[in-house]
Amino acid sequence: MNTNTSRQGQPFQAFEIGAQQGLDSLRQVTRDTPDIPPGEVLVRVRAAALNHRDLSILKGQYGARKSETRVPGGDGAGEVVAVGEGVDGVQLGDRVTAPHFVRWIDGEYDPAVFVADLGSSRDGWLSEYILLPAAALVKLPDGMSDEDAAALGAAGITAWTVLQTLGQMKPGDWVLTLGTGGVSILALQIASIAGARVAITSSSDDKLAIARELGADITVNYRKDPEWATTVRAATGGRGVDIVVETVGLATLEQSLSACAPNARVGLLGALGGRPEDGVQLGNLILGNVILKGITSGSRRMLEDLLTAFDTNGVQPKIDRVFPFAETPAALDYLANARHVGKIVIAG
Amino acid sequence: MNTNTSRQGQPFQAFEIGAQQGLDSLRQVTRDTPDIPPGEVLVRVRAAALNHRDLSILKGQYGARKSETRVPGGDGAGEVVAVGEGVDGVQLGDRVTAPHFVRWIDGEYDPAVFVADLGSSRDGWLSEYILLPAAALVKLPDGMSDEDAAALGAAGITAWTVLQTLGQMKPGDWVLTLGTGGVSILALQIASIAGARVAITSSSDDKLAIARELGADITVNYRKDPEWATTVRAATGGRGVDIVVETVGLATLEQSLSACAPNARVGLLGALGGRPEDGVQLGNLILGNVILKGITSGSRRMLEDLLTAFDTNGVQPKIDRVFPFAETPAALDYLANARHVGKIVIAG
Amino acid sequence: MNTNTSRQGQPFQAFEIGAQQGLDSLRQVTRDTPDIPPGEVLVRVRAAALNHRDLSILKGQYGARKSETRVPGGDGAGEVVAVGEGVDGVQLGDRVTAPHFVRWIDGEYDPAVFVADLGSSRDGWLSEYILLPAAALVKLPDGMSDEDAAALGAAGITAWTVLQTLGQMKPGDWVLTLGTGGVSILALQIASIAGARVAITSSSDDKLAIARELGADITVNYRKDPEWATTVRAATGGRGVDIVVETVGLATLEQSLSACAPNARVGLLGALGGRPEDGVQLGNLILGNVILKGITSGSRRMLEDLLTAFDTNGVQPKIDRVFPFAETPAALDYLANARHVGKIVIAG
Amino acid sequence: MNTNTSRQGQPFQAFEIGAQQGLDSLRQVTRDTPDIPPGEVLVRVRAAALNHRDLSILKGQYGARKSETRVPGGDGAGEVVAVGEGVDGVQLGDRVTAPHFVRWIDGEYDPAVFVADLGSSRDGWLSEYILLPAAALVKLPDGMSDEDAAALGAAGITAWTVLQTLGQMKPGDWVLTLGTGGVSILALQIASIAGARVAITSSSDDKLAIARELGADITVNYRKDPEWATTVRAATGGRGVDIVVETVGLATLEQSLSACAPNARVGLLGALGGRPEDGVQLGNLILGNVILKGITSGSRRMLEDLLTAFDTNGVQPKIDRVFPFAETPAALDYLANARHVGKIVIAG
Repeated sequence: MNTNTSRQGQPFQAFEIGAQQGLDSLRQVTRDTPDIPPGEVLVRVRAAALNHRDLSILKGQYGARKSETRVPGGDGAGEVVAVGEGVDGVQLGDRVTAPHFVRWIDGEYDPAVFVADLGSSRDGWLSEYILLPAAALVKLPDGMSDEDAAALGAAGITAWTVLQTLGQMKPGDWVLTLGTGGVSILALQIASIAGARVAITSSSDDKLAIARELGADITVNYRKDPEWATTVRAATGGRGVDIVVETVGLATLEQSLSACAPNARVGLLGALGGRPEDGVQLGNLILGNVILKGITSGSRRMLEDLLTAFDTNGVQPKIDRVFPFAETPAALDYLANARHVGKIVIAG
Repeated sequence: MNTNTSRQGQPFQAFEIGAQQGLDSLRQVTRDTPDIPPGEVLVRVRAAALNHRDLSILKGQYGARKSETRVPGGDGAGEVVAVGEGVDGVQLGDRVTAPHFVRWIDGEYDPAVFVADLGSSRDGWLSEYILLPAAALVKLPDGMSDEDAAALGAAGITAWTVLQTLGQMKPGDWVLTLGTGGVSILALQIASIAGARVAITSSSDDKLAIARELGADITVNYRKDPEWATTVRAATGGRGVDIVVETVGLATLEQSLSACAPNARVGLLGALGGRPEDGVQLGNLILGNVILKGITSGSRRMLEDLLTAFDTNGVQPKIDRVFPFAETPAALDYLANARHVGKIVIAG
Repeated sequence: MNTNTSRQGQPFQAFEIGAQQGLDSLRQVTRDTPDIPPGEVLVRVRAAALNHRDLSILKGQYGARKSETRVPGGDGAGEVVAVGEGVDGVQLGDRVTAPHFVRWIDGEYDPAVFVADLGSSRDGWLSEYILLPAAALVKLPDGMSDEDAAALGAAGITAWTVLQTLGQMKPGDWVLTLGTGGVSILALQIASIAGARVAITSSSDDKLAIARELGADITVNYRKDPEWATTVRAATGGRGVDIVVETVGLATLEQSLSACAPNARVGLLGALGGRPEDGVQLGNLILGNVILKGITSGSRRMLEDLLTAFDTNGVQPKIDRVFPFAETPAALDYLANARHVGKIVIAG
Repeated sequence: MNTNTSRQGQPFQAFEIGAQQGLDSLRQVTRDTPDIPPGEVLVRVRAAALNHRDLSILKGQYGARKSETRVPGGDGAGEVVAVGEGVDGVQLGDRVTAPHFVRWIDGEYDPAVFVADLGSSRDGWLSEYILLPAAALVKLPDGMSDEDAAALGAAGITAWTVLQTLGQMKPGDWVLTLGTGGVSILALQIASIAGARVAITSSSDDKLAIARELGADITVNYRKDPEWATTVRAATGGRGVDIVVETVGLATLEQSLSACAPNARVGLLGALGGRPEDGVQLGNLILGNVILKGITSGSRRMLEDLLTAFDTNGVQPKIDRVFPFAETPAALDYLANARHVGKIVIAG
């Protein structure tokens, strides 16, 4: 089947970042629909979702991209409108998404996945059209909206990796997750689906109220209660939590470790808070035989499992706000100000 | 602390099996409260639960017991009324249960666990009092009744082993379980708690209706639909199930295997149906790279995790009927006739 | 870099199978060097290795190929002579091999890998040149010959999957492997490298003598000793073996299971011996809580680990005989007659 | 069988620590052979081995013991001379050892194991006789000396836990281990048995020469080469090591992490070097998705597997020096001065 000819050369709208860096460097441009390489498909984007990773890319703090232009956006969903040569099992009209590391199909993390990273080393979803390798596609469950699939994306894969792959979560486990950003709220939702108990922190009682509605068992305002880890441990009957989704990083890790039960598993996601040169005291890791692992997103298989988990349990990812495509810069600004609970989505 | 003196020598009631075999061999007797060995505790039994294993023991088909007398009963819960020397961390009045393999604390199956097997090589729960090693005790969560803790017991541990230890169950997985006996119904309940989907079979539409109320997604009457595995596979969209709780055994295994997705995990519990000399065709196991494992109950750690999972999710194990202590023989007869859905409990 | 032009259109020699089936259907042909698709490389074949899978393909018993022509050969090694667009990290002159399922990069078995299967759904190694996806390539360690790399291939990956991925082999474990074909002898060599003990069977004392030289601890002639599993169990001190590489399949599985220690892991490779309709008694699987899994080859990551294991331990895969390229039909005939110990290689 | 009477009340020699702390607090005393509790055995000690843990206990830095007297010594081997009631499967004359956490039979770390810890919360091996729970015993392989079994003990279990349980070591893996103390040298020996490659550090070229004889592939004098991690990484071809046995702890962890390959596993054993309040930079853990776990010894099952691995591979644990029983204080002093390579053993 050669369905490669339908849109070639037709213009479409996209956001683009160029050589300069910073949130201001984003500009809306017109591009021409490219040829579709063998093994790839062209997708009409219906929804995209934002992550802190997108802000880091815009600031030049993530990946090696420096001089070329690039369409940002690691997460999205849309409809297949053209199919390259040698593609099996994908039909025009299929509703699809993909992991931002489009070569990470299954198995363990491999730094080689960065060579094909949507929004960083490869054009991403903040565009009307996107090229994707067929091998990376995940079909959307029938009942799932494009917005919801986009919202799960990288944040959901990351939470899933911590809870399932590293955490081996089982019903009844205690999960601690920090803040109300995308990863943390999706971790809360996944844990609730799986019958685990959740403790969550925030500086806002309003956000914590939303977290309780989403299933949180313990909510702690870390501004009012700086010894939040002690509070969390007490709430578990003194034993501590089984899994930590350490979304903040080095600045909070010592406290997270002090909330851990023996053999707990802690997924360390990065350095939103804290600087790499900050040292972390690890006494509690030794005493509790705790496992700490650096986590960098996950595979296509995890994304497929994640979509299935939400779809079959009738749970929708918590979306804070949906912006139209043209207001993408405003959406990124909203993300940077951290007023949200859950995901920020672009639709259109 | 020597709390060893309170009841020594006082009489109590128990059921006992002797040299002869069969359900008729059970008799109610009066025993004297024994000395409590170091490291053990005396428990006033508040509830016991029955398993097919108890019928097999009565028939002389399980374990090596032949000539001595023995109190049957692998599952139960009660209150600590006396504590032997050298016991740490157990208080008078603690409400406790234990795995029937009282030396299986954690880790893998080891045939050595049969040397201390409640109801078989060691006196069990169908009695007013029972001696238990302190190391095997699991404390009941505050809100859990003795009946519910007893009902979870061996059947729940077995289902947990298949779903969690072997099955690595995650939300969205498809679980197939056969029949509406204790293991199967508890597997259904555990899978529901964990956000998995469940297909279940029975010869009775009434039983299947109860299974649906307990959360089953697919119910198949295997009497009306002898090609039940084909039906189950179709209901999963053609992909097949991820985990099978093969409660029947050799007689149904070929069909179970034909319902499996690639890399599915099948826990084979025994030989309720089928004879050991029956051969099983394994073509589907090879094609699907399916994992098949023989399963023999589980450890104290699993029992503790199991109680936590039910307690913290506010789910009660499905109890079909509760019999008073004196009617234990009638309860065993009721079990043998397989009219139940879930567990049969003795309280008193 | 476009190095795509060097050989296009130049003729080369290959073996080919057409519509008809059977060993006789193989014929030597001249082909023209194709264009190199994006993401692929052209490799000058220096060595290929044979497997029973190749015989099955020739007989039309494996895969879906029926009518088109196809170059057989799942295993080989050679030198990169041209590189397609978009290929990172591969240089002209690199010495490489690949798993026959060229899309299985990492992670679990997925039946989708059959769509790109060297020698079956995609042209294989029995040719002077082969096209390979860059993502599938494994570079040869400096000191490893092309013949040795080819010899490891599918048979080594399969043995590795059973011993490492399924078997979780550790030093001191007992491994049972059947026969002296490629998979079995490579399993013996891998187990020896890893400090495990090996029991191996054969109908030939001469072959068993070679197995002993390669490190086998126990050798049993199953023709002279039909109760070979009893002999193997006795040799382990009565406890049984920890891992079985069940190369024969259904015809020997019952005996293999009877040689197993508790919690043993058995990799069932196929149906060389026995028919799918033959039933297998599984009583020993239940009693010993044994794990049985169907195994279908493995991933690029496993192949890379395998090459590293042999290279760094200074062990060469046992090659029975090397045939020149033109004598490929004779080599396949030699394989079909099962006189070999280890691998049969084509070089040239 | 009641073999409980043979030695009761007879005097024997032991070393003992009392209320005061420090190496000087050790004194040789005469004790009377105790009654043997049900489930326990009396063992005539033939060999003991020393660990830094023993020094910590003497200094009052490990465990809760403060005021009572205690026989130190976590590792040893000897002969069963009397058996308590209810003990199955142990014969007079059996040569045995046990893990120092005598209640850790199998499965995961549980802080509850500290309640029965040889040499700390329970009398240990620096004595002519020791009481041991039958459930904790491991029989010595026929060909293994008491000295070798004692030398494996806690240090070997710890190395095994890092390499096998956490590390999932496979042939060809790179292992980094620090220093030439007991854990590090046993890690080197286990890794060599399993076909892995080893990099090891020391401040002494003489010790490194011994390490090379024992199989080390890379040896680095960290005094001469303060950037030892860079050297180790370079020696692995730039990729880094797969497993780290971090025997020193916080003082060296940052460098260890910088030597790690992606997905490496690091077992952090304690705080020989560095203070708990020292912070550790974890940037390399995040970048490489490295796993870091606190490790506290291991189970009876691991000890059994460890003895089997050495015995069946014909490898003897590296013993630096053997002291007679009466010179135990001198042996501890020798350990404290860290001039040894491998284990220090007491025999007699």
